[in-house]
Amino acid sequence: MELTVYLAGEIHNPWREKLRKQAEELSLPITFTAPMENHDRSDAIGEEILGKQVDNIARDEAASAINNLRTQILLSKADVVIAYFGAQYKQWNSAMDAATAITLQKPVILIRDEKLHHPLKELANKAQVVVESPEQALKALAYVIE
Amino acid sequence: MELTVYLAGEIHNPWREKLRKQAEELSLPITFTAPMENHDRSDAIGEEILGKQVDNIARDEAASAINNLRTQILLSKADVVIAYFGAQYKQWNSAMDAATAITLQKPVILIRDEKLHHPLKELANKAQVVVESPEQALKALAYVIE
Amino acid sequence: MELTVYLAGEIHNPWREKLRKQAEELSLPITFTAPMENHDRSDAIGEEILGKQVDNIARDEAASAINNLRTQILLSKADVVIAYFGAQYKQWNSAMDAATAITLQKPVILIRDEKLHHPLKELANKAQVVVESPEQALKALAYVIE
Amino acid sequence: MELTVYLAGEIHNPWREKLRKQAEELSLPITFTAPMENHDRSDAIGEEILGKQVDNIARDEAASAINNLRTQILLSKADVVIAYFGAQYKQWNSAMDAATAITLQKPVILIRDEKLHHPLKELANKAQVVVESPEQALKALAYVIE
Amino acid sequence: MELTVYLAGEIHNPWREKLRKQAEELSLPITFTAPMENHDRSDAIGEEILGKQVDNIARDEAASAINNLRTQILLSKADVVIAYFGAQYKQWNSAMDAATAITLQKPVILIRDEKLHHPLKELANKAQVVVESPEQALKALAYVIE
Amino acid sequence: MELTVYLAGEIHNPWREKLRKQAEELSLPITFTAPMENHDRSDAIGEEILGKQVDNIARDEAASAINNLRTQILLSKADVVIAYFGAQYKQWNSAMDAATAITLQKPVILIRDEKLHHPLKELANKAQVVVESPEQALKALAYVIE
Amino acid sequence: MELTVYLAGEIHNPWREKLRKQAEELSLPITFTAPMENHDRSDAIGEEILGKQVDNIARDEAASAINNLRTQILLSKADVVIAYFGAQYKQWNSAMDAATAITLQKPVILIRDEKLHHPLKELANKAQVVVESPEQALKALAYVIE
Amino acid sequence: MELTVYLAGEIHNPWREKLRKQAEELSLPITFTAPMENHDRSDAIGEEILGKQVDNIARDEAASAINNLRTQILLSKADVVIAYFGAQYKQWNSAMDAATAITLQKPVILIRDEKLHHPLKELANKAQVVVESPEQALKALAYVIE
Repeated sequence: MELTVYLAGEIHNPWREKLRKQAEELSLPITFTAPMENHDRSDAIGEEILGKQVDNIARDEAASAINNLRTQILLSKADVVIAYFGAQYKQWNSAMDAATAITLQKPVILIRDEKLHHPLKELANKAQVVVESPEQALKALAYVIE
Repeated sequence: MELTVYLAGEIHNPWREKLRKQAEELSLPITFTAPMENHDRSDAIGEEILGKQVDNIARDEAASAINNLRTQILLSKADVVIAYFGAQYKQWNSAMDAATAITLQKPVILIRDEKLHHPLKELANKAQVVVESPEQALKALAYVIE
Repeated sequence: MELTVYLAGEIHNPWREKLRKQAEELSLPITFTAPMENHDRSDAIGEEILGKQVDNIARDEAASAINNLRTQILLSKADVVIAYFGAQYKQWNSAMDAATAITLQKPVILIRDEKLHHPLKELANKAQVVVESPEQALKALAYVIE
Repeated sequence: MELTVYLAGEIHNPWREKLRKQAEELSLPITFTAPMENHDRSDAIGEEILGKQVDNIARDEAASAINNLRTQILLSKADVVIAYFGAQYKQWNSAMDAATAITLQKPVILIRDEKLHHPLKELANKAQVVVESPEQALKALAYVIE
Repeated sequence: MELTVYLAGEIHNPWREKLRKQAEELSLPITFTAPMENHDRSDAIGEEILGKQVDNIARDEAASAINNLRTQILLSKADVVIAYFGAQYKQWNSAMDAATAITLQKPVILIRDEKLHHPLKELANKAQVVVESPEQALKALAYVIE
Repeated sequence: MELTVYLAGEIHNPWREKLRKQAEELSLPITFTAPMENHDRSDAIGEEILGKQVDNIARDEAASAINNLRTQILLSKADVVIAYFGAQYKQWNSAMDAATAITLQKPVILIRDEKLHHPLKELANKAQVVVESPEQALKALAYVIE
Repeated sequence: MELTVYLAGEIHNPWREKLRKQAEELSLPITFTAPMENHDRSDAIGEEILGKQVDNIARDEAASAINNLRTQILLSKADVVIAYFGAQYKQWNSAMDAATAITLQKPVILIRDEKLHHPLKELANKAQVVVESPEQALKALAYVIE
Repeated sequence: MELTVYLAGEIHNPWREKLRKQAEELSLPITFTAPMENHDRSDAIGEEILGKQVDNIARDEAASAINNLRTQILLSKADVVIAYFGAQYKQWNSAMDAATAITLQKPVILIRDEKLHHPLKELANKAQVVVESPEQALKALAYVIE
């Protein structure tokens, strides 16, 4: 039983790296995919490929088209989505990725600090599992593979 | 041609009321549905129906189950979703509703101030139309019905 | 906003009748559908239509084909399913109806006495709302329509 | 032709072990998956991962979320579901798993003692094959692969 | 509860007319749809609309395109399909219509003389109900509406 | 039996008007929908709603977003799509609308002059019916309703 | 590019064997699957697994349940279906398999003698390709892989 | 992460060859599939397999059936579709392939010269990414795999 897991969510903190390392230590047969984790690259990818755009909105639009291409392909290949929400940013793309997965009938494991429960309550209610740390998410996946 | 439109998004400002009024003035054949717009009621509905819960997380979970029941039913009956994003709140449920509609192949009209473009760029890229005011959203619908 | 609600579950107790009466008292715009509530008729319908069968298994098979015809048609027309579980019977068809609705992305409201929580825990986790009485189920629907 | 088969149903009796052994003796190219078969572990997995819960209902809810995660992933990867019903328990999760598979257009082989036919009649009518022993279920799969 | 029922199957015998008449006598709230029942018209419709074709195969192809247009539209609007098989013809289009409905998760009621059971056994196994006369099919629908 | 028919295709010639008139003369119970038929308005609608855009590509992008909103809503409500191809323009949006309908399992009636057969051959092969005039398309629909 | 091709249709003539041999000679990377080709075994499989049945109808029902299990699994794994129709039998299960594949949006290659065109015209119209011999079907697949 | 990419679009210019070569130079783990690139062969394939047809329309119909077989199979196996539009031809089959992919929720990368923007505006609006050269399309895919 091998799993492919898409790691949606914040790209300003190293939670994915830790999670990948722990999975490796536990020899879990999981392939992880994720959005571009280099934030500047993610914002610049539109202009990198299509050239200088007329203004910041066009620059954002060009970048998001290519970031969404990445997400759509990787999400379609994933068995499970882990979505991490941090305290600081809007993270509307993370909420979008989680809801897309749920609507495609792919299970979502939500990681969030308990303090975020109130604004996340509707998404938490739709997620299959809600945990507070990447370690817990990994334990849930280990239990599936066991 | 009659349309049913679900008005996702912020419930702390009276944008829905204005939009409904304008639609009425224009005699547009549109039925609008929406989440519970009384914020306190929305937060309390779980305990109102199920009784006092053990803590705030259980209270939130009970409320979100019933709010999501409402959204799931109304979204399934909608032809279009209008999603309004304001400057102030997390609005993760609004992002969830918009992404759910898009994945179900229902078109989304996104209303947001231009200042919000950067955090909303991935969702804007997936929405069918992006505008800055409820008036513009209504004009787009009027054009569909014309 | 009119709703069609399928009332899955036990047919040995008059919970549906009470629920319909309350809905009427509240003037809720809901059409209720349900399995055949006359238990003897439900068990005999195969032979009533197809004639005497060779043994009890064939009699059950003939009846269940026609009961499932009824459920499949009514479920396909329902916006919501309410599933009631009582203490006494196996009620595997009720669990089947609830899971069918959930997989078709139709929301389920589960009614069960708290004592039944343990055996129902996986189904409760997948239902959109879990309550303890028909009154509470009706309140949830009233909130949707409000 | 390799098959992946999910073994839904009772976890209080060693039917899966026997079935796996027979499949091995016949060198059938089948990968079997199943729910957690250690009953205590299955009931405790929520608290094992998320910590002590406030009461038994919360404990059950936490466990079922993770058990359902396991089932959803494994069911989505299965070609066929075998569902075993024994005489003693409610087994509502087994009925749920079988109905979920059927609705996803995956075939179900139902194993049950003839004595259980009456309460299982609707589910039996929807299953693709109904047998009385794991041996018979295996013979049906051997015939598919032949 | 109103039903729309598509009457697939043989067009060389007046079974549909009898069935419609009985339904009327019973005041059943059913709208019946069907293929073109005038056999010559059905074979000629391609040339009627498109003009003389080069040979009989082209004539058949032109007719079947338009007959399939009719079936596809009416099937998509049907809640149930009744498929009647007689003793004499190939009736491959009837088998096609029944299988199309089943795959779209619409229930099929199969009417056939018991003598036809062997060649129809796979289709009978997939149909929701198998009966021997239009009267029985109508009784099953009456039970659904009851 | 009432039908809703979306009239995809060229907006530089008055074929829709003729077709609507003939349908009326025949008292066919058909509701026709269509893209914006005023070509200048269709090209300008983006700027009409969103204001002056930075260049012609942005102007086109703004207009196409709103035209696609219209098409997506009307296509989702249509039972059949009629797509007309003329000799002169690229008409890639017409090909897109026809293929979208076919993939959604809605039947397409293609109208084209025989001279266009070669470049349209793949689309013609996927359409349910291919005719040479709006009159023939209407005859096919009349036959469905008959 | 490897293909899996299900060979639906008549089991009273050795067309599958010839086709497999030709594919081998051409070194085509195709895996062929098929129904049970031993006709007696196919008719007896129900009693072989479930024991003696009460009458011929029950015997047929038991066999068809297991034959349909085989078809459902193999069809779900196929990229293409080849369906062969001969002159002699009813072959309603072949028409059912072809229509099931088409409705699941899997392409069907129909093989039939030109003399069968009239009774097969509706199915021919829905098949992606119609040929007169297994050799031609294989050429079409070779062209896909080329 | 390996990708399968279908290269829809013009077959009168060697853009696919260049793109494949560049992908190889960059060692991208991508399998490319495509329509028959030998134009004469593509037009003649119907008669090559089925023999001489009665006229050019029948010849086109025979060819398009087999070309669509190829496209349907390869599209169903693709993760992404790249669609190239040149200045000269109608390319309605390319528009059809792109729209089919989009409706199946597979992302499309559109390559077109900026001069083609106006006639392609609706398709461009639905494509996930719009670029002007095969190099840019390849960069977008490289970013997904990165």
